[in-house]
Amino acid sequence: MQLNVGCHLLFEAIAPSPLILMLRPRSGLGQWVVREEYRFEPTVSGVEYIDSYGNLCQRLITPQGTFQVHTTATVETSDAIDIEPGAAFVPVQELPDYTLQFLLPSRYCQSDLLGHLANEIIGDIASAYDQVEAIRSWIHTHIEYRYDTSNASTSALETVKTRMGVCRDFVHLGIGLCRSLTIPTRMVVGYLYQLKPMDLHAWFEAFVGGRWYTFDATQPEPRGNRIAIAYGRDAADVALATQFGPITLTEMKVWVDASESIHS
Amino acid sequence: MQLNVGCHLLFEAIAPSPLILMLRPRSGLGQWVVREEYRFEPTVSGVEYIDSYGNLCQRLITPQGTFQVHTTATVETSDAIDIEPGAAFVPVQELPDYTLQFLLPSRYCQSDLLGHLANEIIGDIASAYDQVEAIRSWIHTHIEYRYDTSNASTSALETVKTRMGVCRDFVHLGIGLCRSLTIPTRMVVGYLYQLKPMDLHAWFEAFVGGRWYTFDATQPEPRGNRIAIAYGRDAADVALATQFGPITLTEMKVWVDASESIHS
Amino acid sequence: MQLNVGCHLLFEAIAPSPLILMLRPRSGLGQWVVREEYRFEPTVSGVEYIDSYGNLCQRLITPQGTFQVHTTATVETSDAIDIEPGAAFVPVQELPDYTLQFLLPSRYCQSDLLGHLANEIIGDIASAYDQVEAIRSWIHTHIEYRYDTSNASTSALETVKTRMGVCRDFVHLGIGLCRSLTIPTRMVVGYLYQLKPMDLHAWFEAFVGGRWYTFDATQPEPRGNRIAIAYGRDAADVALATQFGPITLTEMKVWVDASESIHS
Amino acid sequence: MQLNVGCHLLFEAIAPSPLILMLRPRSGLGQWVVREEYRFEPTVSGVEYIDSYGNLCQRLITPQGTFQVHTTATVETSDAIDIEPGAAFVPVQELPDYTLQFLLPSRYCQSDLLGHLANEIIGDIASAYDQVEAIRSWIHTHIEYRYDTSNASTSALETVKTRMGVCRDFVHLGIGLCRSLTIPTRMVVGYLYQLKPMDLHAWFEAFVGGRWYTFDATQPEPRGNRIAIAYGRDAADVALATQFGPITLTEMKVWVDASESIHS
Repeated sequence: MQLNVGCHLLFEAIAPSPLILMLRPRSGLGQWVVREEYRFEPTVSGVEYIDSYGNLCQRLITPQGTFQVHTTATVETSDAIDIEPGAAFVPVQELPDYTLQFLLPSRYCQSDLLGHLANEIIGDIASAYDQVEAIRSWIHTHIEYRYDTSNASTSALETVKTRMGVCRDFVHLGIGLCRSLTIPTRMVVGYLYQLKPMDLHAWFEAFVGGRWYTFDATQPEPRGNRIAIAYGRDAADVALATQFGPITLTEMKVWVDASESIHS
Repeated sequence: MQLNVGCHLLFEAIAPSPLILMLRPRSGLGQWVVREEYRFEPTVSGVEYIDSYGNLCQRLITPQGTFQVHTTATVETSDAIDIEPGAAFVPVQELPDYTLQFLLPSRYCQSDLLGHLANEIIGDIASAYDQVEAIRSWIHTHIEYRYDTSNASTSALETVKTRMGVCRDFVHLGIGLCRSLTIPTRMVVGYLYQLKPMDLHAWFEAFVGGRWYTFDATQPEPRGNRIAIAYGRDAADVALATQFGPITLTEMKVWVDASESIHS
Repeated sequence: MQLNVGCHLLFEAIAPSPLILMLRPRSGLGQWVVREEYRFEPTVSGVEYIDSYGNLCQRLITPQGTFQVHTTATVETSDAIDIEPGAAFVPVQELPDYTLQFLLPSRYCQSDLLGHLANEIIGDIASAYDQVEAIRSWIHTHIEYRYDTSNASTSALETVKTRMGVCRDFVHLGIGLCRSLTIPTRMVVGYLYQLKPMDLHAWFEAFVGGRWYTFDATQPEPRGNRIAIAYGRDAADVALATQFGPITLTEMKVWVDASESIHS
Repeated sequence: MQLNVGCHLLFEAIAPSPLILMLRPRSGLGQWVVREEYRFEPTVSGVEYIDSYGNLCQRLITPQGTFQVHTTATVETSDAIDIEPGAAFVPVQELPDYTLQFLLPSRYCQSDLLGHLANEIIGDIASAYDQVEAIRSWIHTHIEYRYDTSNASTSALETVKTRMGVCRDFVHLGIGLCRSLTIPTRMVVGYLYQLKPMDLHAWFEAFVGGRWYTFDATQPEPRGNRIAIAYGRDAADVALATQFGPITLTEMKVWVDASESIHS
């Protein structure tokens, strides 16, 4: 399906403030960026760089006062995500070098402390794909999706205790549990069609059976029409806006609409 | 200035053919991609990767028959390029690691064979910036810009003999001469406002005085309003379309227009 | 000074186990690896790769039973580390892209939660170098170096509470505090001459005044004769041995001796 | 087999000269560096960096006068290289991104001009591995190995004409021919046991059947006991010593000996 998506951010800056944004999706497996727009109001000079995960990052200094970021995109996506029940565990020694970093604990995913719970959840399931799916399903069932129960500092360990959170908490817990089983797992932030309520979203990918598969613990069933914006070890790597100064994000609007194809 | 640019390619493929394109500019120093569009007709699945120079490359397989690539972009550019007469040579031992590869000879730039000519051109000029400018000026004066006198295999060495060529030949000669003086030099392909006749263009950048500066031997004077699409050692690295199959580029259209700002 | 260093690891494996090691120092600023040796007993096939921080990592599968890793090196080091009181804060917008990742919170360094303490420590100190030094000194004074009070899961936040730990805890706290002040800070593991008791060591580097400077909160005064083995965001990135299987490190021996130069 | 290898370079510098060396092998597939030594006489400060091919490069400034580089290593190697007659061509669209750069023409390998000869050589051979082997064999048969018939500027195209050259010329021709068939091919420099006369050596690797295979046109038959030092597109990328100043390499000594295992 072709999607029209957008994200509009409104900041108030008491003084000029450095800002790092990650809001430009790249064309990748299963998504092609047909059109995009990215502008600032007032206009400032931005520079783009590529981080160690291959994400496009935008650096700039906001002026004092009101500052707006408008990004929109039209993206071809897959209607369904690939699933592969039964896909096998990849032994560490056969993992591609690049995936190894996604085995390590990270700021919000203390996989070094979550092995016990992970083993309880998977029981005697043998296939790595099915293990990840069991973890995803367990989170979907046991963690309550509720706003204002977590914040930017909440980690997987805390979510295990409170059993509440939002998509990023679901992701951190999923990642922490999978990594404790030596399955490389990474965070993805992006857009999801028909997400309710609409917002930027987060999910995770696990490397099993020789490739990355998508898992989303907030959803009852596998769903496609996703647009990835950024990949990382956890939310510390993929913050869509990192601000360094007396600046406040006062408004954020996100939309994802089905598009009339511009080809027809 | 804000520019509206575009490139339209028309291919005829006798059979499905792999194609690698480099047609998506990135936001960088002095240019911000406000809007872009990139689509294929008929629609095919493309994937994008980042090469070792940081360029965005698009991979795809064309279907049999007619295949069109449409790319357009609206880009904020600088009206002028930075110049810095007197800027000093950076001793090899102080060059950033990344720049060292741009000292080596490459397919079309046999810097190992061009030192004699380079030294003739620069005479007793001391500043590295001024040396590069002398080389640029010498090429502008001594090489005739003429179509159909060179081809995809023509190297700097041949251009020295024929004294004729197009922008890519001017670039290769400039690069070869500068590198022979141990000045890191790289090729840039992109758009130039008011280029006559309009086409995709190529110029080079030299690393002197601690940063990259832009030089264009096809132009009588420094000119801004350039949009870089890709960087590399020479044309072998920055081919905007590399095809692997029975496919022919039958038509190509390029445009660069001043834009009414979309902010107003 | 030229140092002879070595690390000897003894593992017991109940079954063949994948192992990732980071034990090969590279020649870098202020250190030149004159000689090194790296072997396994029994002999196994290892493969080396470079991680995203530029560290050399060794991958292998241990056999069942006793497995030994012997690494030794002779390295030219600087007798003193550079210090630069008064060195200025580098504004975010002027930081090299590469350093930006070292501003983010990581597994053991919750810089997002440590800003209050950091500001208390630095008071009205203006220079970034002096701020980092104040943090280093505060840790040296307020945190007690004591074994068996922390473990592989202990984070900076916990160390603030317990006020006890070992070198890695000192590092994590230093990093967390500095990053909360928007100073890029990274962990280094390696060897330190005349460390008592001798062991592998950890310290941190802060990016101020346009370059990285070394800080070590376990030491009363700046000391040179360090050999860096690996760099990362925190201990999750620079574990010298990461094991994935039923394998136990049963013995570890580290030595650092002044060397008679092999040149003479 | 375990090999003891070494390379000794003697330079005479009229003035201090920057030097870039690539003389430190890394542990990789089929080779493990058990021990190495790398020193300068007189002692100077070197710094090491990793180039875009993953090679370790050493930067330094030589003093005026005589300057010596001593490198030795003990390396575990494979007695035989893998061969795989019948291994299939990998279609461009399935090649890993990393290999694509090894399809392009480069300084000494004008693959854009060698397609005709390549097709003559392979005739109706279908398997990509067998095509590369045919090319290797053709070079071995048709190009005469003779010193002083080529130099640092000689390219594949010239070797086709002169039908004479040394190992680097054999490699360039092999690479140029294979790339013209859309087979990724790269140059390797290193040590070969029992090479006669002993020297540093060069061979090439082709990516067929999903992995890199080793080919050496200077040898009548496949031989193992090779130690790779550096990889690149051609000799421009893998010069073992690149000098920038009034400095001359006056002596070079290379040795490769079977080693008594240091484990026994």
